[in-house]
Amino acid sequence: MTEHGDISDVWEDLVQGGGKIVYLVLDGGGGLADPFTVRTALQGARTPNLDRIASASETGLMEPVGPGITPGSGPGHLAMFGYDPLRYRIGRGVLSALGVDFELREGDVAARVNFATSEAGKVVDRRAGRLDSDVNRRLCKKVLDSLELEFDGELYLETVSEHRAVLVLRGEGLGGELTDTDPQATGREPLPPQAQDEGSRRTVELVNRFLEQAHRALAGEPANTLLLRGFQRYSPLPSIQQRFGLRGLCLAQYPMYRGVSRLLGMKLGPRPESVEAMFKALQQRYHDEDIDLFFLHVKGTDKAGEDGDWVAKVAVIEEVDRLLPRVLAIDPDVLVITSDHSTPAVMGRHSWHPVPTLIRSQYARIDATQHFDETACATGSLGLRPGLHLMGLALANAGRLKKFGA
Amino acid sequence: MTEHGDISDVWEDLVQGGGKIVYLVLDGGGGLADPFTVRTALQGARTPNLDRIASASETGLMEPVGPGITPGSGPGHLAMFGYDPLRYRIGRGVLSALGVDFELREGDVAARVNFATSEAGKVVDRRAGRLDSDVNRRLCKKVLDSLELEFDGELYLETVSEHRAVLVLRGEGLGGELTDTDPQATGREPLPPQAQDEGSRRTVELVNRFLEQAHRALAGEPANTLLLRGFQRYSPLPSIQQRFGLRGLCLAQYPMYRGVSRLLGMKLGPRPESVEAMFKALQQRYHDEDIDLFFLHVKGTDKAGEDGDWVAKVAVIEEVDRLLPRVLAIDPDVLVITSDHSTPAVMGRHSWHPVPTLIRSQYARIDATQHFDETACATGSLGLRPGLHLMGLALANAGRLKKFGA
Repeated sequence: MTEHGDISDVWEDLVQGGGKIVYLVLDGGGGLADPFTVRTALQGARTPNLDRIASASETGLMEPVGPGITPGSGPGHLAMFGYDPLRYRIGRGVLSALGVDFELREGDVAARVNFATSEAGKVVDRRAGRLDSDVNRRLCKKVLDSLELEFDGELYLETVSEHRAVLVLRGEGLGGELTDTDPQATGREPLPPQAQDEGSRRTVELVNRFLEQAHRALAGEPANTLLLRGFQRYSPLPSIQQRFGLRGLCLAQYPMYRGVSRLLGMKLGPRPESVEAMFKALQQRYHDEDIDLFFLHVKGTDKAGEDGDWVAKVAVIEEVDRLLPRVLAIDPDVLVITSDHSTPAVMGRHSWHPVPTLIRSQYARIDATQHFDETACATGSLGLRPGLHLMGLALANAGRLKKFGA
Repeated sequence: MTEHGDISDVWEDLVQGGGKIVYLVLDGGGGLADPFTVRTALQGARTPNLDRIASASETGLMEPVGPGITPGSGPGHLAMFGYDPLRYRIGRGVLSALGVDFELREGDVAARVNFATSEAGKVVDRRAGRLDSDVNRRLCKKVLDSLELEFDGELYLETVSEHRAVLVLRGEGLGGELTDTDPQATGREPLPPQAQDEGSRRTVELVNRFLEQAHRALAGEPANTLLLRGFQRYSPLPSIQQRFGLRGLCLAQYPMYRGVSRLLGMKLGPRPESVEAMFKALQQRYHDEDIDLFFLHVKGTDKAGEDGDWVAKVAVIEEVDRLLPRVLAIDPDVLVITSDHSTPAVMGRHSWHPVPTLIRSQYARIDATQHFDETACATGSLGLRPGLHLMGLALANAGRLKKFGA
């Protein structure tokens, strides 16, 4: 995190009590035209409920991080919640730990781990043939059982999926400024980790002992090498309650989004098994007195986009639409529908394209947009804006920002 | 150059290899409605090819430097190429030297020169009746021939055009922080140059000796006085290759744009004699393995605008349109059509109005815009943005930016 301020600091000074805010996030919801239908998934989907909501909302396009910048899931979510992702950085290690619901504590040092295969000391496969997750679990246990670190703290090695795992070191005074050991290419030896500051030397010694013992334990296994990257010492961000006076509840299903929510100080609701269950949970909890912000997260849009499956993305959007009357039934003070980034099916990955966004509230400046999609929202009353703006607009619509100046 | 960062620094960290980018810059292309036709030149021109391209592109408006700010050619171009013109300043002296294709070296001190006329020590015409360029050349030579500076370095005095020339001082340890000698008004004496820092004292002494000898040589000539302004010590900017991994080729015809390209580390192609020759050069060079970015510059739009000649501006746009199939024939990975600033014929000079811009690529979010002009692009999917954003969008469309964060 760098020290420069941004507009979100101004909101902090203006915060007051107010209405409730519901964020419905269609992960990777924005897209590009499908080559056959010449429509984006949002354009191709039949969405009578979204259309009704868009017709009674202010709409626009949000550019999550910046022009041309394709957000990872972390930065995309930070922006939506009023944290400039250029200012608040989440390292890959911390994000991986959040992603497996690992309860990081302040001072923990986390790194992303790849199970890899080496021959004669050189990496021949950085992903060990995309290891089966069960093998990953077995190998993590084998490594952990073999360790004799003589270390006055704790070490965790947890499976994420396939070849991916996460390493967490917990102990007094461990710095997190270490270089990667992943050489990022085959045919090369893993790199020795290097301390980037004085406080990380002990961590380097510990990591070296860990790697030596782990590699001994993995000898002869299909994955015989651990590659580490994205070291970061975890320190919690200022919470959305501290910053914006919002007591948040996360109703997301997937670990990474629950992890980001915890990072921002939200409570975690029970993990919903479906969009329907998520909307039901919203109905049940909406009037809870200790919750101001509800974070609903739909993963299916991003998954279909990453699979390059436009039809499936349309289906997820239509499913959400069919269930939207459950959200409308509670008539939230402020309903925000947006995305953390675009995931065009035609690209099969995250992209930089701005995301359609609507805000429905008593104070929304209703525009001519009648369908929730990339083209219609481009002429909406919110215009094209940085994703960071969203939280300020949501707070204002909830009556949660005092007048600025006299 | 100040030290604050901007979004372009983030791109630097994300750069990877990717497709080729063609920038077609219609200098001063944006405009205002002509009072007779009530159309801008872009609206009035018959442009079937531009229309086709716009229909298959993402479009928007770019504000080159900032709200209400009329860019000179230097800042306008810097912005397009991803250099914040508020951060990277090019002084008038350096720009003038670039404009005559003078090969500045690091440490050279350049100043813009006006040939002026004085009587009894007071300036009576700051432009010496807009001297003929041939007279300017003769006088430059006369001054140079007369100099006995006892200076262990080199001094250049080069004609630009009419009353304009440029002075370059080359030598060890010459500072460039000097105040102007141009009093900016008639009836006043030229000002003595003053050093603004310790390192520029030697430069002041040198300039004083130069002016004294030059004025002696010019006695009795129609221009008997040199007025100096915009001193700057030249240090090259970080190149577009260093910053964005782009190996650029400049196909501009005019010296100033070639100079700006060199300043940014582009190669200079042969000087094309016409738009047709420029497009042919693009066709010939497009597949060169060592070029990623092609900079094509059309001067005619700006010239017609400055001449207040809406009809001529329309004609230039129609000429470009007629030749555009040559560009389409190579089907560039990314085609950007934009301007460095507006030059409305009705104003007869540069203006602050945002410029129509399109990006055509496989990943462009195609919008409803079907004609490339100020009004149509205002509702395009790129929205209204700072000119600085353009490079990031071009890089992303070329697949040249990695994902930000995990």
